[in-house]
Amino acid sequence: MPNTLLLKNVRPMAGEATDVLIQDGRIARLTSGQVAEGMAVEDGGGAILLPGLVEAHTHLDKTLWGMGWVPNSAGPRLIDKIDNERTLKGALGIDPARQSARQVVQSLRKGTTQIRTHVDVDTVVGLSGMEGVLATRERYADAMDIEIVAFPQSGMLVRQGTVELLEEAMRLGADVVGGLDPCGIDRDPKGHLDAVFALAEKFGKPIDIHLHEQALLGAFSMELIFERTRALGMEGQVTISHAFCLGDPDTAMVDALLEEIAALDIAIMTTGSASRPVPPVARLARRGIRTCAGSDGIRDTWGPYGSADMLERAMLIGLRNNFRRDDEVELGLAVCTTGGAATMRTAGYGLAEGCNADLVLVEAETLAEAVVNHPERKLVLKRGRVVARDGEALVTAP
Amino acid sequence: MPNTLLLKNVRPMAGEATDVLIQDGRIARLTSGQVAEGMAVEDGGGAILLPGLVEAHTHLDKTLWGMGWVPNSAGPRLIDKIDNERTLKGALGIDPARQSARQVVQSLRKGTTQIRTHVDVDTVVGLSGMEGVLATRERYADAMDIEIVAFPQSGMLVRQGTVELLEEAMRLGADVVGGLDPCGIDRDPKGHLDAVFALAEKFGKPIDIHLHEQALLGAFSMELIFERTRALGMEGQVTISHAFCLGDPDTAMVDALLEEIAALDIAIMTTGSASRPVPPVARLARRGIRTCAGSDGIRDTWGPYGSADMLERAMLIGLRNNFRRDDEVELGLAVCTTGGAATMRTAGYGLAEGCNADLVLVEAETLAEAVVNHPERKLVLKRGRVVARDGEALVTAP
Ligand SMILES: [Zn+2]
Ligand SMILES: [Zn+2]
Repeated sequence: MPNTLLLKNVRPMAGEATDVLIQDGRIARLTSGQVAEGMAVEDGGGAILLPGLVEAHTHLDKTLWGMGWVPNSAGPRLIDKIDNERTLKGALGIDPARQSARQVVQSLRKGTTQIRTHVDVDTVVGLSGMEGVLATRERYADAMDIEIVAFPQSGMLVRQGTVELLEEAMRLGADVVGGLDPCGIDRDPKGHLDAVFALAEKFGKPIDIHLHEQALLGAFSMELIFERTRALGMEGQVTISHAFCLGDPDTAMVDALLEEIAALDIAIMTTGSASRPVPPVARLARRGIRTCAGSDGIRDTWGPYGSADMLERAMLIGLRNNFRRDDEVELGLAVCTTGGAATMRTAGYGLAEGCNADLVLVEAETLAEAVVNHPERKLVLKRGRVVARDGEALVTAP
Repeated sequence: MPNTLLLKNVRPMAGEATDVLIQDGRIARLTSGQVAEGMAVEDGGGAILLPGLVEAHTHLDKTLWGMGWVPNSAGPRLIDKIDNERTLKGALGIDPARQSARQVVQSLRKGTTQIRTHVDVDTVVGLSGMEGVLATRERYADAMDIEIVAFPQSGMLVRQGTVELLEEAMRLGADVVGGLDPCGIDRDPKGHLDAVFALAEKFGKPIDIHLHEQALLGAFSMELIFERTRALGMEGQVTISHAFCLGDPDTAMVDALLEEIAALDIAIMTTGSASRPVPPVARLARRGIRTCAGSDGIRDTWGPYGSADMLERAMLIGLRNNFRRDDEVELGLAVCTTGGAATMRTAGYGLAEGCNADLVLVEAETLAEAVVNHPERKLVLKRGRVVARDGEALVTAP
């Protein structure tokens, strides 16, 4: 039987062992003791079955993965890192197509089956990042879903011509309009956000804004985002990445922001940064706010960290949020799975019959153990096809 | 030649490749092209050579490592976790000898060659933790140096008889007198610290105090520690573990504390906790304060995290301290190596000729890469003897 695979003896979400029949890229049946006559079989050996991990925020176009160690010597401010990066991109020869391919393969090894990536668009690199990531998206179309955010990393208004380049990026195939620190970079929050929302309206696309601004400044920028989301009827179509101001000790201020975020169905992305205030994941969950996670930059000119492992990311989120009980650790995992799918509005995500067969097998006793150990992935499936086995991807990168 | 080993083609601290001649457990010679006639040889393959990693704060007696997953359901307060643990120790059958052996072997796999462990002494478990860890220390005497802190986890004064048990623990072989949150647990900071320092004086041993107390309360307890350190002439013999109050945003308060810490040569231990204020490692280093690192509890009733990998710990410390430049990441590594040895006053620690041959080989291009990747350890030597190879310990645990 073509396009059919029987996955035997797996434990969905660490529950009872069962078999999973996969047909035409979807989960067809979930019952024990299915007969495999003439079809391909994979023995799960009692491993935990998870839906594919979701990398909801990264920067595929500029990772240094596989390029040899590049010593980091950037200055301390955000603008130092942005300027340092623009300079190094040329000097180091960071080829967006090659580099994004390398990170995609690393993500596959780690059981990630869909990625939202922000791609730099500016007056120096122009659309070369877009072109590179678009090539990677096409190349790995059978193995990874890639959603592209057109991202004005160097500002929109401070560099004339950027808005036009972003329009061109949307025409080329970007799925989401990006934005960045409306006060901090463009120094014109109204102008920046008006431009971002105008692009979203023009192309009928959702928005994902990097917001590192902290405390009252971040709250102010958020309020401007709320106003525009409501005015344009964009409820449910906006993501705020980082949202450090939600980690402020002023809980009254944070509660007021969370109220609006829930009302406008805005999604929040966290990396669980250990050195910055971060959105309190448990409080977001209690309000039903869609919350997702990302690696952000992986081994790039901003910093040397990152492994593209979303189970390790769940651990880092757990450590940052002081999650100790099993149900808390599982919440960190939910952020890296269902939370990401809810943010990207992925149709057919999950482990129910009829869902996409985007699946990961991990050997662990419980979900919490899978998070704290994040062992090598036993098997990774994309639309029912094996794309990685025993920690190794079955596709390669240049 | 007995007791002789030639380690060929290794890069000390990621520097130039060389050979290392090891004789009688020490580094005898560090030059390229040494001839190995008739002696044992290990080929380092150009890997980085580090001195043995130092686990300067853990709790060997109560890890659940290898016991199957124990779901965590402890309440949120410190006292909830202490009470929960005392109850579970019996219920789960946490055998201190067996469990400490398991963690020692895991540490060996990860290239740790010396450990400072706090061992619970209280009126319920009595000295059983001590006896178990002492048995492990003897059992692994050739593979791991273990320094024992007699630790009043459940308080000293609130549970009558604890001080006498601590005295007995010192007689049994504890090397360091422990203490814990003088205000928070015993509710009698003067009484608690007087008892700790009296024990140290009586047995002529150093002190290592857990201090989770934050902000002004932690600063107050620290001042009481300073006063006693100075009065008893115990400069250079006190460690403060966690020291969360040093992560306070009130930098004037923190600077005043750091001034005293430097003057009294007090050592500071950090785990790089992501969810608590932490000592700012770079500022401590600038003042020349001895700073070490530990895993703290590894997979115990307090929480599920921990791998006993001090290279991963260096990464977590780097993430927490926002270390991005290579020199900063290397500082995190120093805390997990030389900083630990400086705290434990280890004679002969390092990579110079004459130093102990407590060594680790790691495949990486640079020190920063060794930290962020923390790959499987290629080779681990204790006093010149191979104790782990390719990630696997050559000694076993029950
Ligand atoms: Zn980002
Ligand atoms: Zn501790």
